[in-house]
Amino acid sequence: MIRQDYKAMLNAKSVIREMFTYATERGKEIGYENVFDYSLGNPSVPAPQEFTDAMIEMLQTENPVTLHGYSPTPGIPSVRATIAESLNKRFGMNYTAEHIFMTTGAAGAVAHATRCVTSPGDEVLTFAPYFPEYNHYINQTGAVLKVVPANLVDFQINFEAFEEMLTDKVMAVLINTPNNPTGVAYSSATLQRLAEILEAKQKEYGHDIFIISDEPYREIVFDGADAPYVSKFYDNTLSCYSYSKSLSLPGERIGYVAANPACTDAEYIVGMCGQISRGIGHNCPPSIIQLAVAKTVDLTSDLSVYEKNMNILYDELTRLGFEVVKPGGTFYIFPKALEADAKVFCEKAKKYDLMLVPSDSFGCEGYFRMAYCIGTDKVERSLEALRKFVETEYPNR
Amino acid sequence: MIRQDYKAMLNAKSVIREMFTYATERGKEIGYENVFDYSLGNPSVPAPQEFTDAMIEMLQTENPVTLHGYSPTPGIPSVRATIAESLNKRFGMNYTAEHIFMTTGAAGAVAHATRCVTSPGDEVLTFAPYFPEYNHYINQTGAVLKVVPANLVDFQINFEAFEEMLTDKVMAVLINTPNNPTGVAYSSATLQRLAEILEAKQKEYGHDIFIISDEPYREIVFDGADAPYVSKFYDNTLSCYSYSKSLSLPGERIGYVAANPACTDAEYIVGMCGQISRGIGHNCPPSIIQLAVAKTVDLTSDLSVYEKNMNILYDELTRLGFEVVKPGGTFYIFPKALEADAKVFCEKAKKYDLMLVPSDSFGCEGYFRMAYCIGTDKVERSLEALRKFVETEYPNR
Repeated sequence: MIRQDYKAMLNAKSVIREMFTYATERGKEIGYENVFDYSLGNPSVPAPQEFTDAMIEMLQTENPVTLHGYSPTPGIPSVRATIAESLNKRFGMNYTAEHIFMTTGAAGAVAHATRCVTSPGDEVLTFAPYFPEYNHYINQTGAVLKVVPANLVDFQINFEAFEEMLTDKVMAVLINTPNNPTGVAYSSATLQRLAEILEAKQKEYGHDIFIISDEPYREIVFDGADAPYVSKFYDNTLSCYSYSKSLSLPGERIGYVAANPACTDAEYIVGMCGQISRGIGHNCPPSIIQLAVAKTVDLTSDLSVYEKNMNILYDELTRLGFEVVKPGGTFYIFPKALEADAKVFCEKAKKYDLMLVPSDSFGCEGYFRMAYCIGTDKVERSLEALRKFVETEYPNR
Repeated sequence: MIRQDYKAMLNAKSVIREMFTYATERGKEIGYENVFDYSLGNPSVPAPQEFTDAMIEMLQTENPVTLHGYSPTPGIPSVRATIAESLNKRFGMNYTAEHIFMTTGAAGAVAHATRCVTSPGDEVLTFAPYFPEYNHYINQTGAVLKVVPANLVDFQINFEAFEEMLTDKVMAVLINTPNNPTGVAYSSATLQRLAEILEAKQKEYGHDIFIISDEPYREIVFDGADAPYVSKFYDNTLSCYSYSKSLSLPGERIGYVAANPACTDAEYIVGMCGQISRGIGHNCPPSIIQLAVAKTVDLTSDLSVYEKNMNILYDELTRLGFEVVKPGGTFYIFPKALEADAKVFCEKAKKYDLMLVPSDSFGCEGYFRMAYCIGTDKVERSLEALRKFVETEYPNR
């Protein structure tokens, strides 16, 4: 008998994916270059040439038996050491290779980290608006994801609601900064206050509360933004990273968990992640990708296009009268819709070939997400459609 | 609080891994070329040049944004179609892309397949001797692995014991042919009888019983062996494959689940695997490796060395009086030890720099495994050590 709970999941549709499918179909009619597709968060800039060169060089010169050989479950030791050093240099941390566990992207990192520090039935808090896949990453571990309502003023943390929900059952807090979908980065003040509250509650409840910090957009930070390294603020932090965005390698599935060396039982986290990997048959990320990433550890793709696009969009949205918080990073922006039902708003936008994602599935009604990881030319061409959409559909604002 | 059951697993040591670690240490003393290391099942022949060439060509000519872009969770559609066609051509099946789910090797495939067709508490039967990692792959799904005692005559199936254990609680039977650790392939007669028993029991119990067929050694079959394609015999079969051995890519983590199109709910299996992948944050195997494997789908590394090594070892073991079943494939052989306690036997062999793995962890006492995926030169040089070991330690046989 096939398992009924997995089968039942097949009926759930992703709003983002549906919008992308519509955009693809529409592209067949009018040319995809004429569809202003802000639906998917896919990097649009190439991997650095150095990454490609490193791959080719290894393939041309190394013994294939070694190059494609098994990596130990936690990752190739030299790769883990390189990453630890890079983090130490950049963020003043004191990781060793023993604190780094290689994963299949930040998604694998978040799922593993959650399994390490929660047991079935425990609660994990996250903050709206949030990446809807968290429901899957967290709930399939047996822990229960609960969502703290948004701080609609600036998309920092709604501390009042947070403190109310931070009961004895909460074993982990999952944060994502810079954030998908708002583009907002948590400030030093936010992280400081978050840490103080958690420290106090750890003492009060007599158990650890871990921060699981999902950081795939860490390297996409805009001019002037205060986007500090989360683990500097709170010892019990597991940092979850992905090279998907910084090196534009989303399909190659490579990232890591970095356990703060001062966290409780730091010496066990990586080994436990290894046991979790065994149980899902995952074992290790691809060897050659691990090695190539280590050779380009301090590089990124040319990420400047995202800031350029953000500024163009932010200026136009503001000019058109949208309420919108200026992003500090990522390639997302999250304006308030011009009517209460964001789904209706985004449906109307389709008529102008604007693909906007309504905010409901991010746990925050009445907004929409634009993923501006597309060419600047298309962003510029979309402005007229945006103006026409607003002026035609909402003439009396 | 870190999760105590994962933490407790850290104390369990792998016998194979310990033997390999000893071999590495001993290698530092006397030179690794003088350690007759039969411990690890790591391919010793290079990936085909065509694989390397395909990787380099893609890196040199394709748009990195596309090449390293997200694969859909079930895998890249063209890759899945290529694999389906190859299987159809080789084995007379009728797969389409919709029946193929790309995984991180056979390990990921077995773990996913098990999650698809069992619920927590259900039983999965496998046959001794068996790959000890099955305990992790199966038990971490919540299902319970039970081991049918070995057929010590020829390492085909012990049907008497199997029928006794095949209760109403069994939802899946996990087989591995050609087999690690015995090297034996299940014959057509064995698979026919297995299928008949399962068909009858499905009717009797009124529920499906799936075969999960773990086939990483499918392409390593020796002259004259009867090693048919499992799924031809039984509709409710999920075939779990890996390119680790056939293309010598163990570190690149690439394989698939192929659901027999005639199995119950065949149309849901791949989608369910996708939901399982979401929940562990795995999402998809690396895009570039998927694409390169599709370009070399009908190739293998030069696997002939394994048969050459097997023949040399089989002849010498037989000559020395070992009881041993001749392998039909893989790069393993599984002779009976010369004393009841295989651990003591293998410990004595270390004195002759022979690294043999005692059979206890394979669920079958009194035997030992030799992984002969090493150079033929070393196999030949090991024979003197083997003779000396047997003659010195067991002179009165």
